[in-house]
Parts: sequence; C-alpha cells; structure tokens
Amino acid sequence: MRTMAISPQSPPSSSSALPPPSVALTQDELKRIAAYKAVEYVRSGMVLGLGTGSTARHAVDRIAELLRRGELSGIVGVPTSTQTHQQALALGIPLSDLDAHPSLDLAIDGADEVDSHLNLVKGRGGSLLREKMVEGVCKKFVVIVDESKLVPYLGGSGLAMPVEVVPFCWKFTAGRLRQLFEDAGCTAKLRTFPETEKPFVTDNGNYIVDLYFKKDIGDLKVASDAILRLAGVVEHGMFLDMATTVIVAGKLGVEVLDK
Amino acid sequence: MRTMAISPQSPPSSSSALPPPSVALTQDELKRIAAYKAVEYVRSGMVLGLGTGSTARHAVDRIAELLRRGELSGIVGVPTSTQTHQQALALGIPLSDLDAHPSLDLAIDGADEVDSHLNLVKGRGGSLLREKMVEGVCKKFVVIVDESKLVPYLGGSGLAMPVEVVPFCWKFTAGRLRQLFEDAGCTAKLRTFPETEKPFVTDNGNYIVDLYFKKDIGDLKVASDAILRLAGVVEHGMFLDMATTVIVAGKLGVEVLDK
Repeated sequence: MRTMAISPQSPPSSSSALPPPSVALTQDELKRIAAYKAVEYVRSGMVLGLGTGSTARHAVDRIAELLRRGELSGIVGVPTSTQTHQQALALGIPLSDLDAHPSLDLAIDGADEVDSHLNLVKGRGGSLLREKMVEGVCKKFVVIVDESKLVPYLGGSGLAMPVEVVPFCWKFTAGRLRQLFEDAGCTAKLRTFPETEKPFVTDNGNYIVDLYFKKDIGDLKVASDAILRLAGVVEHGMFLDMATTVIVAGKLGVEVLDK
Repeated sequence: MRTMAISPQSPPSSSSALPPPSVALTQDELKRIAAYKAVEYVRSGMVLGLGTGSTARHAVDRIAELLRRGELSGIVGVPTSTQTHQQALALGIPLSDLDAHPSLDLAIDGADEVDSHLNLVKGRGGSLLREKMVEGVCKKFVVIVDESKLVPYLGGSGLAMPVEVVPFCWKFTAGRLRQLFEDAGCTAKLRTFPETEKPFVTDNGNYIVDLYFKKDIGDLKVASDAILRLAGVVEHGMFLDMATTVIVAGKLGVEVLDK
C-alpha cells in the first residue's frame, strides 16, 4: 500500500540538514532523505535494531543527533554488525544485544533489492545473518532505500544474492547452490577482496557465496527452504515477509510503502 | 525391511578379530561387530565418507587393516571431522575432500538414535555439520549402531538432539529453539566442557545447543525446516531420509535394516 509521497521540495519536518531543493540530489543524499524519514518512526524508550551499510549509517547518525538534542531519550540500540556497533558506540548511543532484548520495537536498515511484496535482498555488505537475527524479532521493520533498489523480482537487479556458508568445502557448497538454481541460469562466486583475492570473512567467521540469476527463481519460500536445507549454508540474503514499511527516496520525492 | 540376522556365533566372514562366542559382549564389542559388517559394503576404488565417533572409529580401523592386507585398494577417504582426518592420516588411508569429490560412493558412520524409518539423530560427538555435508551426497549411507540406539521416535532416548548455532547471541537462539518445541516440553542447553564450563566449539567455530524433549516432536520434516529457518542456526542433528542401511549389533546378533 502506497500511503504518501513527499517531494524533496517539502521534505520531512525534521530534515534541516538536507540540501536545498534546487540542487540535483546524489544517490547518497537520497539515502539520507529516506533514513531521516525512517527515524521519524522512532519514539523515546524504544529498543531499536540498528542496520548496517551506507543507508543505515545515516539513520544511526540521525538517531544520535536527536539523542544529543534531547528530542529522543531512553533509546537502546541493538547493532547488526561490528561496524554499526563501533559507529553507535562512537556516537554515544546506549547499546545492548539480543540475549538481553530478545524482542525489539523497531529496526531500521537498508536493502539491496525490494520487490513489490516488500521482500528484500540484503547482505551485499556482508552482515546478513546478524541483520536477519535482529530484524526477525522486531515489531516494526522499516527499510530505507533509494529508488534504484526497486526490482520486478528478487535477483532482478542482476546483482548478488548473498549466501553465508561455512568455510569448510565452500566450493562444494557453492556447486550445490548453483545446481539448485540451474534453471534460473545461476552462477555462484566466492566473495573476495579485489586487491588480495582473499575471501571476505563475515563477523561470524564464515564466507559469502554470491549468487547471480539470469531469470526469476520463482516461489521465494520454496527457494529459501531449499537453500537452508543444504548442509554448509548458514543463512541467505532473502528477507521474506519481514519488512513492514519501505521508504523509497527518489528524484521525484519520498514514497512510503506499507504492508 | 529387515533382510538378515547374524548371531554372534556366526559373525560376518571377515571378523577374525572378534571375541569368542562364549564371552558376554560389551557395548564397544557390539559397535565393532556392526562396524566390521559395514566395511563388507566397501569395494576397491570407492570414494568413502569416513564417519566420526566411537563406532565409526572401528570402521576406519578396519578399512585401514584391509588396505594393509591388500584386500582393498584404490580407496579415497573423505573424513567428516578433524578427529577422523587425524585417525585416517595416521593409518595411511589416502584422503581427499568434498571440493575434489562432490559425490561419494559410500559413507559409514555411527548414530545416536535410529527410528523405524531409519531417520537418525547424530552429532552428540559434535561433528554433525560435516557429517551431513558428506553423507548427504553419498550413493549409499550405511549406519552402524548397537541396539541401545533404536528408539520409537527421534528424541525418544531422552538424550540430546544437537543444534549447531553461531556463537553470536547463542542464548537468544537457544530461547527461540526452546519456544519452537514448547509443546514437546523442550529444554535447550549450551554444550560445555564439564571441567571448565567453557562452551564446546565445533570444527567450524560454532557452538552446540542440545535440545531435550519430553514428548514426540511430530512431523520431522516440518520440525527440520522450522529449525533451519531460525537465523543463527547453522545445522541440526536430525538426518532424515539419508541412511540407506542400518546395521544393528545386539546381544542376539547383527541385524541389517535396509530402506
């Protein structure tokens, strides 16, 4: 359900740091607009899931700013990565974890793809497992993206759908993943650092195998279970039926999509 | 299907090392009888999954003995744990891995529980993930147990059903696992070393949460998918529809159960 559209000329009330309307907006500015809009959902006293990545970073900055100004208070943040943990710590946001808070009020995070049912691909930043643990137990999960992330179907951007796997015999697991989606023209690549070609290692000590599809993979729940049934797979980057709201910042304004 | 029964008085043909029939058999001797019987399925040139634990250890010993004697040749072993890797290496069995051999001819391994459909609980030794990776791609999977491992339903021994979880917020994951099986009177305990109370760490750097059930958990495939869908879970110890043969050594003989 599309509930509202705000043009950059009339940005959210608390957006004093936004660029003047006459300036063409960069992708990063669009991300910031979406992030600031999402923080309007935060209320004092909430336990908050803090996302990871270039868009979520703006939301964490904004929460810290409102805490400093006294416009928010009593917030407890649950970070979804060591990276966000460090950012939030440096900004003075009080932090906790899922062991102490097994249920959260709200999470705000970016996404790499969003389909028309608000299903997501996440984890190109590599934090998909912790993000899924935190965002799976939130009453509300607000996703913030720029309009380039909207896709007709998951995998439709042609970019990676990440799968976190144990390092043990990762080639074997990558092969089984590729076979699983052979009909969709799947290729599977270990994520490595371009400079060193060494494997990217997640916060949990695992590897990421990035899947690329030539076609729609069909029923996402079936695909999800099939991936999870492979021994060697820890988690995948499809977040199905989890987002409650998606805030999309585009050149023509901000759009809020609700479930 | 129960295909044969061999009493200890007429043990498998190649069992010269077995105790004389008049001696009461210990549990370890029963395990060895089952293991020796399983090794009769091995043919020269096979790529073999080598199991982990006190029963599988006998099978690995026996394979090495037959290789030394020249009764087997051209065997390649794929170990299911660092422990078995070391045992097989010391015994001179040629070794490889799943990356080089993504399909295996036969695996032999023990189990902690076996139900009447040949579904298993495995992993009380802590190697469930690598075991499942290897044994999931074997043409034949021969399971060797003493008769104490037969149960009316999985979990029915009252002993642990292990789940491998990422260390990050393991208490949270243990709580979600317990909730999942609340109706079956589930309790969930982190596996620790009794002396130090430090967590047991798997070959993959993860923890084990042991589940205990007061009642039958019902449809095992449903339970399996529900466990795997929890972010934070890496794998569980139910091996469903995987064993092709179970060899049971009991005080009254050896029984071979085929799928």
